[in-house]
Amino acid sequence: MPEVGIILGSDSDIPRISDCFAILEEFGVEFEAVVSSAHRTPEETKAWVKDAPSRGIRVIIAAAGGAAHLPGVVSSYTVLPVIGIPIETGVMGGLDSVLSILQMPSGIPVATMPVGRSGGANAALFAVSILALLDSGYAAKLAAYREKMRAGVLEKNEKLRRQGYRAYMQSVEGRK
Amino acid sequence: MPEVGIILGSDSDIPRISDCFAILEEFGVEFEAVVSSAHRTPEETKAWVKDAPSRGIRVIIAAAGGAAHLPGVVSSYTVLPVIGIPIETGVMGGLDSVLSILQMPSGIPVATMPVGRSGGANAALFAVSILALLDSGYAAKLAAYREKMRAGVLEKNEKLRRQGYRAYMQSVEGRK
Amino acid sequence: MPEVGIILGSDSDIPRISDCFAILEEFGVEFEAVVSSAHRTPEETKAWVKDAPSRGIRVIIAAAGGAAHLPGVVSSYTVLPVIGIPIETGVMGGLDSVLSILQMPSGIPVATMPVGRSGGANAALFAVSILALLDSGYAAKLAAYREKMRAGVLEKNEKLRRQGYRAYMQSVEGRK
Amino acid sequence: MPEVGIILGSDSDIPRISDCFAILEEFGVEFEAVVSSAHRTPEETKAWVKDAPSRGIRVIIAAAGGAAHLPGVVSSYTVLPVIGIPIETGVMGGLDSVLSILQMPSGIPVATMPVGRSGGANAALFAVSILALLDSGYAAKLAAYREKMRAGVLEKNEKLRRQGYRAYMQSVEGRK
Amino acid sequence: MPEVGIILGSDSDIPRISDCFAILEEFGVEFEAVVSSAHRTPEETKAWVKDAPSRGIRVIIAAAGGAAHLPGVVSSYTVLPVIGIPIETGVMGGLDSVLSILQMPSGIPVATMPVGRSGGANAALFAVSILALLDSGYAAKLAAYREKMRAGVLEKNEKLRRQGYRAYMQSVEGRK
Amino acid sequence: MPEVGIILGSDSDIPRISDCFAILEEFGVEFEAVVSSAHRTPEETKAWVKDAPSRGIRVIIAAAGGAAHLPGVVSSYTVLPVIGIPIETGVMGGLDSVLSILQMPSGIPVATMPVGRSGGANAALFAVSILALLDSGYAAKLAAYREKMRAGVLEKNEKLRRQGYRAYMQSVEGRK
Amino acid sequence: MPEVGIILGSDSDIPRISDCFAILEEFGVEFEAVVSSAHRTPEETKAWVKDAPSRGIRVIIAAAGGAAHLPGVVSSYTVLPVIGIPIETGVMGGLDSVLSILQMPSGIPVATMPVGRSGGANAALFAVSILALLDSGYAAKLAAYREKMRAGVLEKNEKLRRQGYRAYMQSVEGRK
Amino acid sequence: MPEVGIILGSDSDIPRISDCFAILEEFGVEFEAVVSSAHRTPEETKAWVKDAPSRGIRVIIAAAGGAAHLPGVVSSYTVLPVIGIPIETGVMGGLDSVLSILQMPSGIPVATMPVGRSGGANAALFAVSILALLDSGYAAKLAAYREKMRAGVLEKNEKLRRQGYRAYMQSVEGRK
Repeated sequence: MPEVGIILGSDSDIPRISDCFAILEEFGVEFEAVVSSAHRTPEETKAWVKDAPSRGIRVIIAAAGGAAHLPGVVSSYTVLPVIGIPIETGVMGGLDSVLSILQMPSGIPVATMPVGRSGGANAALFAVSILALLDSGYAAKLAAYREKMRAGVLEKNEKLRRQGYRAYMQSVEGRK
Repeated sequence: MPEVGIILGSDSDIPRISDCFAILEEFGVEFEAVVSSAHRTPEETKAWVKDAPSRGIRVIIAAAGGAAHLPGVVSSYTVLPVIGIPIETGVMGGLDSVLSILQMPSGIPVATMPVGRSGGANAALFAVSILALLDSGYAAKLAAYREKMRAGVLEKNEKLRRQGYRAYMQSVEGRK
Repeated sequence: MPEVGIILGSDSDIPRISDCFAILEEFGVEFEAVVSSAHRTPEETKAWVKDAPSRGIRVIIAAAGGAAHLPGVVSSYTVLPVIGIPIETGVMGGLDSVLSILQMPSGIPVATMPVGRSGGANAALFAVSILALLDSGYAAKLAAYREKMRAGVLEKNEKLRRQGYRAYMQSVEGRK
Repeated sequence: MPEVGIILGSDSDIPRISDCFAILEEFGVEFEAVVSSAHRTPEETKAWVKDAPSRGIRVIIAAAGGAAHLPGVVSSYTVLPVIGIPIETGVMGGLDSVLSILQMPSGIPVATMPVGRSGGANAALFAVSILALLDSGYAAKLAAYREKMRAGVLEKNEKLRRQGYRAYMQSVEGRK
Repeated sequence: MPEVGIILGSDSDIPRISDCFAILEEFGVEFEAVVSSAHRTPEETKAWVKDAPSRGIRVIIAAAGGAAHLPGVVSSYTVLPVIGIPIETGVMGGLDSVLSILQMPSGIPVATMPVGRSGGANAALFAVSILALLDSGYAAKLAAYREKMRAGVLEKNEKLRRQGYRAYMQSVEGRK
Repeated sequence: MPEVGIILGSDSDIPRISDCFAILEEFGVEFEAVVSSAHRTPEETKAWVKDAPSRGIRVIIAAAGGAAHLPGVVSSYTVLPVIGIPIETGVMGGLDSVLSILQMPSGIPVATMPVGRSGGANAALFAVSILALLDSGYAAKLAAYREKMRAGVLEKNEKLRRQGYRAYMQSVEGRK
Repeated sequence: MPEVGIILGSDSDIPRISDCFAILEEFGVEFEAVVSSAHRTPEETKAWVKDAPSRGIRVIIAAAGGAAHLPGVVSSYTVLPVIGIPIETGVMGGLDSVLSILQMPSGIPVATMPVGRSGGANAALFAVSILALLDSGYAAKLAAYREKMRAGVLEKNEKLRRQGYRAYMQSVEGRK
Repeated sequence: MPEVGIILGSDSDIPRISDCFAILEEFGVEFEAVVSSAHRTPEETKAWVKDAPSRGIRVIIAAAGGAAHLPGVVSSYTVLPVIGIPIETGVMGGLDSVLSILQMPSGIPVATMPVGRSGGANAALFAVSILALLDSGYAAKLAAYREKMRAGVLEKNEKLRRQGYRAYMQSVEGRK
């Protein structure tokens, strides 16, 4: 039974939030992903949100760009925690998406994540941090994830120390 | 029977769009005004929009601020023309309201009006310009309104010519 | 006889609003398209606007970028509904175009559409939503268009359900 | 034992988020509020965060303005859910606060709330929506709160219907 | 015979550019000021611009706010130098006015002045700097004006040296 | 003897303002171009500006990007008309360049041109519009230039009428 | 002999950076303050900067608003560390001042401080942090200052703990 | 023994600030570079900062992007001068990075450098300008560096004079 529901305003958003899927899988969180639009399929969106608790969903992640109404519209139909991911656009790098998700009126909360790549990752991790209140197994995994990130930074630092900035710079540029 | 429906996300928006009401009255357009929120009363908002044609409404004006979803949500429930008025806020003078109304996805059109005082006036005039396609009486009134505006500018100009800028400036400052 | 007039500030705008042409054709709306500049051909622009009603035009769509005066200048010469499409630029993704079209003074309305791809599509759909008040055939077509969009989203969702996000993501990325 | 911890970068933020306190009290959520700065008292901030779980805290709300590092710094010390409230400033209405809280790197999630008045209210409600996963009593209260908001909008709408916009407008302006 | 023509989109702009009038008078430049709108009185605006050279006008100053089309529209009717003054608004302090005046397409130049108080002053001084190419008397006056400004700064500096910052600060605050 | 002096903050600006050179040549205006920095060669910049009148220069064009001080610094050393061209940057498309040139304090005027390609062209045309007050030959050439632009638009419009938008669109896209 | 030189583009900036003076005095740092403009008194500005080392000055603080060229112009005349304070304006809260100071070209460094009240304070503290490399007495004072700030936060926190948020809120609001 | 410590929030920042390394090497300044994150390795970051003086470090340079907390967090642990480099991002060209570094609260100073390429260079030069107060050898090198930059500009100007703009333009475009 899925614990997290992911709703996407457009299928083109799927690769933009690929880290969201990957991290939920890494943590062993079952999730359900749907493409459903606040504007093109308002009835289906509403039905999916209203039924979410009965399917076991405890946290909803909604991604949208431009006049990104989806996260707010989802929140208007549920009291489950709703996490919004603003998708990048051509308007000031996605400030339209950010403000449309962020500036919700008093009473209908949405938790906004960063615009850009880290948005998907942090939405997943934030969802897990909520689930961890219910299942301490997730809390342990989150702590391990932090430790792994820490080790990754230390390793890079050690590599920089060993190689010097010049060699490291070439390897960074080679990555692209 | 109302020809124009006005939907307001918050009752605090009423004085912000006072020119909208005043101009529709001046043109003799019957209108219906409701306070209904995209997020707090989604069902009532939907019902009001879906029933609008049966009550005679041909054009909808929707005003909202912040994550201003109301105009787009209204448009998702109707193929009537929907005009959005962005209400001023503290975030860059209402750029959040503007972008949340303006940046609608392909397929669900909203006609965005200016943020600030002229938003209400132009929403009303734009609605009348649509109704004028159905009733040439409105077209004549719009032409007369333009003529009145023109005369107003000419009168101000004549006053400036007569008084000089110094006297005029004092009268402008006295207005406030 | 054309029902919609499309005026473009620059011929480079033509591909930017290709969806506008395509949708009007799809709906069977006759239109007339001209390249005419608010600044370089002010007389021709004015003449085209003033004569528009006599050629049958009921709605005008004007596209421009940068100090995008064309929609406002067009509106100053007519009481027909004028729809403005802001063309993307290098300045904050076209915020210059948006504000030059949006912030019209009280009395001269322009209906602003989104900046970016959806601007052309929504200008066409909004124009049709106005014409639908005169011709219920358009209203039926708009309803069918909405239904088609809805079906398209449901189909994508079904595909996502069947394939899973990983396979779908590859197909999205393959699209580009 | 407090379930929510509220950490404020400056005591001047207290009245800015007064709705946060009021709503938590209304829902009967025990909370602990501290003034502690990411920069002026980094050790005390860290200690408070690290000890939070042992004091019963399950959700942390952090408010800060300008280079608003507090929510992100708090999140770096815990895997509890961290909610950030950006405080308004003179720089584009608080865009500095928003971006400093929002744009967290991948791995250290913060849930950003609106800038301005609704930020405090929605932080509280979002925290309650998390606690409601643990205690269905909160879920029922959230549903009742939504219902109360809905009734409030309907009441305003009824008042508008009865009084007309002119009388209503005067009462709105009298409110200030 | 006036050498400078000043055209104002709205009479409310008169006090905003009061330094423009004052400086032209101080330099003994004859000017003509009109209120005329790009949108409300397009014919009168065009006529005034087209006739300007025959009345002796060599430089035009145009002030407008919001979708500030006036300077660009004026320039489309003349090859005289056109100076634009963006009037402050609620949208990011007048960024709408600035971009609507600044971002003119290739071929129709407008010289944009600062938004805010210094806009009027610098428009006048820039106009005089052009006239000074025709009349060396103006060049001498401009040099004297610069010298007076220089002396004013030196005097303030001397006062600061004598009084110290504390006393000076009180006198600055007393000014308001 | 050069009538226009062009000063560039960096040699990388040369191709960005290529239309400036091309138009001055087209109009037969003699010009002098120098690379000189407000910050790296302040003495040479000052000397060049101070000597400009003695070399025959009547109008100065200054291009710079980022903290674009050059136009303002140039103006501080002369009462000749100074035209500033903001060079595009990565920060909001060059808003840093625009504001650094535009927002000059009262007393030291700079005429700001558009950011982006049209900046160079309009700087040249604006300079010619000033010179035209001294030499009516330039006025005639400006009128002819306007006529040529007008003819160019009409020709494009005629082509669009003949070919239809589809064929035209392909030719526009082929241009790139 | 002054160790810090403070140069102000306008005497109206003095109260805006009052914390700068107050903190330097608190630390016992001798300073010299002048009003001198990059544009109105370029020669005096240059002379003051060039002579600064001979008067004992080791660090320069320059405050300016709008097209805030002063810090960059000062840096062009010296290799001493130059600290810039952007003064608030009406344009996006001073973003013009920030970008004009911040975006200096490679080679001429300026250290930009926050816009708004904390700009003056942090300029002074940053200057002291430089002087502390020369005189360990300052380093000790900086450590004590940090400790005092820390104690201030702890005291506020203790007061909040004792009084509760309601009473504290009233005292905060009473402050204004 | 290193005099300058460089701390990078991410190893991907290394090539972005390559001029920082290159200039420090050119000036013969010993430096130490570490990758350490404000959020992923808060303890290691703190330890590195606290130990910096004991390793001889007198100035710290910190680079970060997005919610760029690193420079401010570093400053919270030391009274050494801290220089922040904002890394470019997709959000308005890095305005998120700029504001997160710039808008530090009163009491914890950070010296912000430009966003973009010149940020790394100016951070290095500003660090050297501080070290030059301790070691006049650096002051001489800075003066020589300025002289070299000056000569470079003069050489480019001479080349422009000799070649003319057309040939120069081609060589500039060939550079890319």
